Order: sequence, then C-alpha cells, then structure tokens
Amino acid sequence: MSFAGLLAFERAPAESGRAVVRARVTAEHLNMHGSAHGGFLYSLADEAFAIASNSREADAVALSVHIDYFRPAFPGDLLVATAAEEHLGRSVATYRVEVRRHGALDAENATGQRGSGTAGNADGAPAPAEDGPEDDGPGDDGPGETVALFTGTVYRRPRRGAAG
Amino acid sequence: MSFAGLLAFERAPAESGRAVVRARVTAEHLNMHGSAHGGFLYSLADEAFAIASNSREADAVALSVHIDYFRPAFPGDLLVATAAEEHLGRSVATYRVEVRRHGALDAENATGQRGSGTAGNADGAPAPAEDGPEDDGPGDDGPGETVALFTGTVYRRPRRGAAG
Amino acid sequence: MSFAGLLAFERAPAESGRAVVRARVTAEHLNMHGSAHGGFLYSLADEAFAIASNSREADAVALSVHIDYFRPAFPGDLLVATAAEEHLGRSVATYRVEVRRHGALDAENATGQRGSGTAGNADGAPAPAEDGPEDDGPGDDGPGETVALFTGTVYRRPRRGAAG
Amino acid sequence: MSFAGLLAFERAPAESGRAVVRARVTAEHLNMHGSAHGGFLYSLADEAFAIASNSREADAVALSVHIDYFRPAFPGDLLVATAAEEHLGRSVATYRVEVRRHGALDAENATGQRGSGTAGNADGAPAPAEDGPEDDGPGDDGPGETVALFTGTVYRRPRRGAAG
Repeated sequence: MSFAGLLAFERAPAESGRAVVRARVTAEHLNMHGSAHGGFLYSLADEAFAIASNSREADAVALSVHIDYFRPAFPGDLLVATAAEEHLGRSVATYRVEVRRHGALDAENATGQRGSGTAGNADGAPAPAEDGPEDDGPGDDGPGETVALFTGTVYRRPRRGAAG
Repeated sequence: MSFAGLLAFERAPAESGRAVVRARVTAEHLNMHGSAHGGFLYSLADEAFAIASNSREADAVALSVHIDYFRPAFPGDLLVATAAEEHLGRSVATYRVEVRRHGALDAENATGQRGSGTAGNADGAPAPAEDGPEDDGPGDDGPGETVALFTGTVYRRPRRGAAG
Repeated sequence: MSFAGLLAFERAPAESGRAVVRARVTAEHLNMHGSAHGGFLYSLADEAFAIASNSREADAVALSVHIDYFRPAFPGDLLVATAAEEHLGRSVATYRVEVRRHGALDAENATGQRGSGTAGNADGAPAPAEDGPEDDGPGDDGPGETVALFTGTVYRRPRRGAAG
Repeated sequence: MSFAGLLAFERAPAESGRAVVRARVTAEHLNMHGSAHGGFLYSLADEAFAIASNSREADAVALSVHIDYFRPAFPGDLLVATAAEEHLGRSVATYRVEVRRHGALDAENATGQRGSGTAGNADGAPAPAEDGPEDDGPGDDGPGETVALFTGTVYRRPRRGAAG
C-alpha cells in the first residue's frame, strides 16, 4: 500500500496540469487538539501537486513548497484538494493547491454528527473569519471553506517514472 | 522620501483588501545580469501587500512571505503588482500578489527600444515557457506575463498606523 | 490512534523549544517513485514542529510553513527530524526543522538490505550533491544527510491544549 | 547604478558559498510606520543570496524564496545579511540568509541618535520577544538581533554571467 493508500486518498482522473484528490477526516488523522494534523492536510495537497505536476511530458520532483493554514478540519469533514498550474517552464513549474472542506453536515446531509463543529472551529482556529466578507456564509452550498493554501515548485526532467 | 518613493512605485487608490502598484524598470533596478533585481520585484509586490493588508480596520504587520520567480523583467518593462485577499481572519490574514509585466513595446507601443528583449528573455529565464499552454502568446493584448507570484501572511492588531 | 501513531512516529522527550521525532521508512510511506512521499517527510517535520512550539507556556497553531526537499529517502532509512527555535515572540514564533536520514546500512549496520541504495539515490534525486563540499561523504558516521529543511511559524495564545 | 548601489549595499569579498552584505537604514528605506520596509530587508538578504549562490562554478537564478520577519529595524540601524549554503546540488541549491541588526547606539557608540528606539521597537514589532530566553538581552555585545530569516532556492546552469 502506498502512502496515498494509507491515508485513504481518492483521486479523480488526471487532467493536463490539474488534479483533484479527496479524503474524509477520521480519528487516525488527528493531532493532539482533535483536529486534522497539519501533515495530513499537507499530504493531501502534496498528492494533488504530484499528480498535476506529473501529468505533463516530464517527470516532476518537488523542490520547494509553501503552505498557509487558514482553518482547522475535523473528523467527518470531506476535504478536497485541487491543484492548478501557475507556471509551466522547461525545467521548473509551479502549482497552486487549495484544500477546501465540506463539513460533515454539508457533505453528507447527515444529522447531528457534528454538533460540536462550530465550537470546535472557534476553539481551534487561529483566526476564525466567520464575519469576513470573503468567507462563505453559513448554509453556503458553494465549494466549501478554504482550509489551507499550498504553492509548490517542481524540477522537471525527461520522463522516467512519476513522483509524489 | 519613502522606500516606495525611492523605487518610483505608483499606487492606485486603495480598495478594501485589494491593491495595485506599478513601476517601470530602469537602470537603477538591475542585478548583475541586466534584469530586474529579485529584491526590486519583491519590493513591488510587498508594497501592494502592505497597502491591501492595511486597507482593513486593523494594522497589519508582515510575518511570512513566499515568492516564486517565473520570468525576468528588463529595462523599459512596466510591472504591475496586484494584491488580493486569500483569507481574512481576526489575528492573521493572507494575500496573493501577482507581478505581471508589459514589455516596453506592448506597454508603450514604442519602436525599437527593446529589440533584444526576446533574446534577453531566453537568456535570463530559468525556465522559459514560451510554448507552455498556460502562457500568454506573443502579441497577446491581455494582462501580461506573470513575472513573480507572492503569498504573504500578516499579523493584525487594533489600528494605530500603517505597515509596509 | 493519532496521525503520529498511524505513521509510526517515535518522539523523544520534549525539551523547551526543541523536539526530536524519528521514523523508519516502510512500504506504506512511498510515492509512485518508490521513495518516501513528500507528505510523509513533511509530516515528520511537522510533528517535531508541533511538539517544539507547544513546549512553551502557550498553545501554538501553525500559520505558515516552507519546506525545501534536498534528497529522496528510501525504505529502510531511519529519518530523524530535529526542531529548534529561531525566534520566540509573544504572539508568534518560528522554528527550523531539519530532516536527516540514516541509510539502512548506516543506521542498522545490517548487511545487504540496501544494495541498491546508491543507485536509487542517483535516480531519485533532483540534484544529487555527492561532490558538494558541504555534503557528508560516504561512510560518514555523522548526523546523516539532510533530506528536507522546514521552516514554520506559529500563532501563540494562552494555553488550553496542544496543537499539531 | 545597480539596484544594490541605489540601496547603498556594501558587500564583503565573496567566499565559496557564503556572502555578507551590509547596509545602514536611512529615511529612504522606510515604510509608512517609520521602520525599514519589508522590501528593503528582503533586498538586502536577496543580494547576499545572489552573491553566495553565484560564487560557485555555475550561474544561479532564484526560483523560490521564503522570508520570516521577526523584528523591525529603524533609521540608523546597521543591518548585516549573512548567506550560507544549506544544500548544493547539481541543478539546484538552497541558501539560508540571516539579517541581523545592530542598533545605532550599539553599532556606533553614538549618543542619543536613537532615543526613541525602544518605543519604536515596542510599537512596530508584531511579537516583541524582550523576555524570550533566545533573545539577546540589552547591552549584549553579540552578533545583534535577528530581524529576518530568508531561505532561498536557485536553479543552477553552466556559467555565463551572474544573477541577483
């Protein structure tokens, strides 16, 4: 089993320069707070980055990555990482990956499972932005809240295999 | 004279969470290659970041910034840095700043001034992407080529003054 | 089981502002290349970062992280992440985490298990530095080769629990 | 005049993989707060990065840079940027640059010039760490306080000229 398998990542079919990877947060993905581990969120984004950057006619190896964490994610949340190309050069390329979450309720239309979600959010978030004008309001059916923003640069070389 | 004045930055009127700053590359902005210094490109983006992040009801101080360089810029190029909010939280906020260039010919419709521009580009670029599908083609009238991509996070606190 | 448990991380007793976390690379930690997944390497560093930043009198939540990947790691390698404080402020703090590897042979003094290690390294590395003057030479008994360098910034607030 | 000249940077003789660049903060280097502009601090570090990365047998072009800001700097402060190699590979290399400041009084043993320095520091710092155990205490004769920490990665190619 690969690392992506260990973390139960589900990947959508690859497109040129783009990728989507999903995962459901479970008890095995948590930090000491009870929210999703920073390494789990990063790994999800990194998997989308690897697929997108290797969808081209060259092998891609990660060089430098930056990630900003905006909000915590909790057990039951569905996370979706979407990678897109910012720049494609001959020897290097840069990708942006957004990790968005869909709460247990939103994603499943389940009842009750995440009654403590709001309190958890207020607890765990370094800077909750509930009232920020850019934020998705409650009840939003849109693409979910951004949990983390990832920017990664790869080195590209003639194809031999694939990277991650 | 401020640092923005020393570098001849021109700022557009501020909007909430957004900012645009422009500069023309001159001989005083170059590195040993004859292309715009990485610090000059960063400073332009940083000025847009400072204006955008201080356009809110709090003072913003830069904590962490990441920049990726995609292409070189040359004397005569008009550079435009555009800052937009990625996340606005109570204590922190994150901004994305794109630096785009408009070549001397494109920007001015001038004649001849940058005859060596194309060669210069091929020379100086770590990874020229002339043939990349995401790239603006030659003769494109659009928003210019992306020279650098900047992501910055600020710490926010009750207003006293402004940052940069 | 926490995420650190899922990835079989072993942590040394915490010190003030410092932390050490170890892991052995196994088949479950690999990318498509057969080397350790970028998310696995990051997660190891992130765990050390979380422990170090929460060793102080405040709770720490990750804001921004940067990572550079220097070399690949392979099954059997022992990885050691060491976190140290770069800056401790009232509201923010910054940590440096080095991830070093000790090859299966070096670490275990085992025989044969990693006969293809050298070839694997030459294959997988974007920029092997065998002849670089800063590099540990072959047969070095020292602290191992640096696989990745991580710099992370946290937001600090009055203690309630711990982060990751 | 180059960009380094415009900003009055003074460089020490280059060494292999290392560089030191100094500058005195003046009125022309300030942001709206009255402290050194983030772009000025970055540019100083970037100049040391360019010199160090081009001191080898290849040309180096900046790809990705991360900077964390720890403390503000003020007019009269002497800033020293010191670049050192973290990793030297065939196609890429990574450098760490520390920017340290020596207050007007410390550096010059002058009288009075920076009477408002302490207040300015308390004002401008996002996270003053006066009482942090890692901080240089007042009256320290050591290497100064760290103002910013910069990590940059270059792409390397056969020598033609030099970068910045």
